[in-house]
Amino acid sequence: MFRIPQLTARVSRMASLRAAMPRAFSTSPVSMANGKVLLVLYEGGKHAKEQKRLLAGIENELGIRKYIESNGYELVSTTDKDPEPSSTVDKHLKDAEVVITTPFYPAYITKSRIANAPNLKLAVTAGVGSDHVDLNAANERKITVAEVTGSNVVSVAEHVLATILVLVRNYNGGHKQAVGGEWDIAGVAKNEYDLEDKVVSTVGAGRIGYRVLERLIAFNPKKLLYYDYQDLPPEAIKRLNDASKLFNGKDNIVQRVEKLEDMVSQSDVVTINAPLHEGTRGLFNKEMISHMKEGAYLVNTARGAICVAEDVAEAVKSGKLAGYGGDVWDQQPAPRDHPWRSMDNKDQTGNAMTVHISGTSLDAQQRYAEGVRNILESYFSKKFDYRPQDVIVKDGEYATKAYGQRK
Amino acid sequence: MFRIPQLTARVSRMASLRAAMPRAFSTSPVSMANGKVLLVLYEGGKHAKEQKRLLAGIENELGIRKYIESNGYELVSTTDKDPEPSSTVDKHLKDAEVVITTPFYPAYITKSRIANAPNLKLAVTAGVGSDHVDLNAANERKITVAEVTGSNVVSVAEHVLATILVLVRNYNGGHKQAVGGEWDIAGVAKNEYDLEDKVVSTVGAGRIGYRVLERLIAFNPKKLLYYDYQDLPPEAIKRLNDASKLFNGKDNIVQRVEKLEDMVSQSDVVTINAPLHEGTRGLFNKEMISHMKEGAYLVNTARGAICVAEDVAEAVKSGKLAGYGGDVWDQQPAPRDHPWRSMDNKDQTGNAMTVHISGTSLDAQQRYAEGVRNILESYFSKKFDYRPQDVIVKDGEYATKAYGQRK
Repeated sequence: MFRIPQLTARVSRMASLRAAMPRAFSTSPVSMANGKVLLVLYEGGKHAKEQKRLLAGIENELGIRKYIESNGYELVSTTDKDPEPSSTVDKHLKDAEVVITTPFYPAYITKSRIANAPNLKLAVTAGVGSDHVDLNAANERKITVAEVTGSNVVSVAEHVLATILVLVRNYNGGHKQAVGGEWDIAGVAKNEYDLEDKVVSTVGAGRIGYRVLERLIAFNPKKLLYYDYQDLPPEAIKRLNDASKLFNGKDNIVQRVEKLEDMVSQSDVVTINAPLHEGTRGLFNKEMISHMKEGAYLVNTARGAICVAEDVAEAVKSGKLAGYGGDVWDQQPAPRDHPWRSMDNKDQTGNAMTVHISGTSLDAQQRYAEGVRNILESYFSKKFDYRPQDVIVKDGEYATKAYGQRK
Repeated sequence: MFRIPQLTARVSRMASLRAAMPRAFSTSPVSMANGKVLLVLYEGGKHAKEQKRLLAGIENELGIRKYIESNGYELVSTTDKDPEPSSTVDKHLKDAEVVITTPFYPAYITKSRIANAPNLKLAVTAGVGSDHVDLNAANERKITVAEVTGSNVVSVAEHVLATILVLVRNYNGGHKQAVGGEWDIAGVAKNEYDLEDKVVSTVGAGRIGYRVLERLIAFNPKKLLYYDYQDLPPEAIKRLNDASKLFNGKDNIVQRVEKLEDMVSQSDVVTINAPLHEGTRGLFNKEMISHMKEGAYLVNTARGAICVAEDVAEAVKSGKLAGYGGDVWDQQPAPRDHPWRSMDNKDQTGNAMTVHISGTSLDAQQRYAEGVRNILESYFSKKFDYRPQDVIVKDGEYATKAYGQRK
């Protein structure tokens, strides 16, 4: 539908020939003076054939094969990432200089894998969120970890809004009846609310959390709360308040809360927009959920492991949470018997999970494909002039406060 | 979850006793000096027992039985509206002075029913949208038709946003995999876009359409277009532009288009927010859809009959429309074999239908129950001091331009 400038022109004809081969595509016909780049992407299959803009499918290789090869590097791309240590990823990491992975189909760059990758100098995340890389191990080896900051913040923020609206308005209940041949309005309406005049809070008010707040303003919330290690910039708060004044005639709409328990206890909807690190892993467990309002909604598009899967499933089942939604899972691909697949309440309206798609819209793919190329450009040129906001760890140190070294 | 002041206290104990009886609840034990009020609502059943705020269920009777009876009127409430002329509605319309209906479960107040209701003086719509009343026939008899304007405009606008996001971001595709045990990111992503930077247009920029525009601004659309018989008020346009400037740094975001075909041909998403009347019935037929962009989305929460069901289903099936969603149907309850229940594209991502729930959230129910009571107050007191915006037809004339007498 949407006219997006095609990046796929950059894909060499070789890539399309390779698309017929299974799993691992490698080795340029010319010998490579420089090192090896290992690229791990999900299988696009017939979808990549149907949709040329599916740059994140292995068949389209982010549209960067030609670029990489023109810089004298070898590109090996594969979908075969598990199990360690027998996968294609393990085989090629051994002599790779650069590895490119995604959060949607993460190849975990573990401490042991890093130990077995003596040449590795750069780990690039095509997307946002590099917790699938062992950052401490990367620091020990002074491997640079970079991601394409901002490439999918809008996409994720949109998914948050979609998920909140699906839950609060009981889209699932209404849709199931529509396609299932039923018509029982009361059975939907009894779990259907307006988002207007509700308290919505975000755990984390960074690039995504702030954008979520922006998109909530026009819905005329009662209050927007946030929990973060730092204040929102004054100009961001002013922007939210000015917009609230414009649309809803009320000021002072957003407020920082110091204690997470205090925030969730007054929120009708809680959305998690924080990175996964030691301080957030398992943060929403039974204890934290017990502080939430009866029948509140919890939306997590950040990282699955920030929530304890069984505790969330139990809270949805019991009705403590009216619903849980999001697209991130503690294991990806999520196993078929993951509790979040089957969890629901008695009315079957409390599950708004999707597979991990929020950041991989076709628009986002275009942005992070470009971003990966820019990061490689900085590396290949030996200028190492990365955009500062893209650098997660470098020269043995955390370059951002977001990854939990704030203590 | 949300704390809403309870209106249900107004429901007399009689109502709860009556709830055990099937279908028609009637007749106060005292003889009524004044006339009869006929109330047609959907069955709440067990849902009304579970959710006391389900005021629009027949069991809770909008919380107005006691009020009506205290004014010396008899209240007959029923779910039995079809078929004409043998239903309970027909039986009681014969001597009713007031009839109260809803758009969600419409009792059609047809010309023939009006002809058989010599005492009928007031038809109240509990909600917004009175096209299920034959307005011309009402005018001939000088029956007042009033609705609770504004009572669910926010709810519907939220449903529009929910439906747009569900479609554009391919929530359905992602959710089906999540609960179905699958994990094929490419299969979802190939039909997933960002709402950002898209052209979104509304057919109708009244109370709902305008609120949709407000809620779209923070999503940073490329352009917002509208088609209406009149300009948006200058202050509304200024508000949208000011918010766009605040959030997105760009002005001049909203534009009126004179010709509907011109508008839909440049829109990635078209949302219909217009009343059903002679000028809008069947407006989106094969011909109009042919002017839409390939793979655009169409969202209709206004009235089902504004679209030609078979033409829409065919366009979704062929991929001309990437998706169609909304909650209104040309027949309600929709028959089990209605084409919009089963329509879809080859990837099963193009159907975002729900049953007719957008305006009947629990928050909206509270508002329109209050609004119905206010309209009755004006009538019972013989002041007839209705809120002007609530009056659709009165004294034989259309009181609003919205219902198609603009020609």
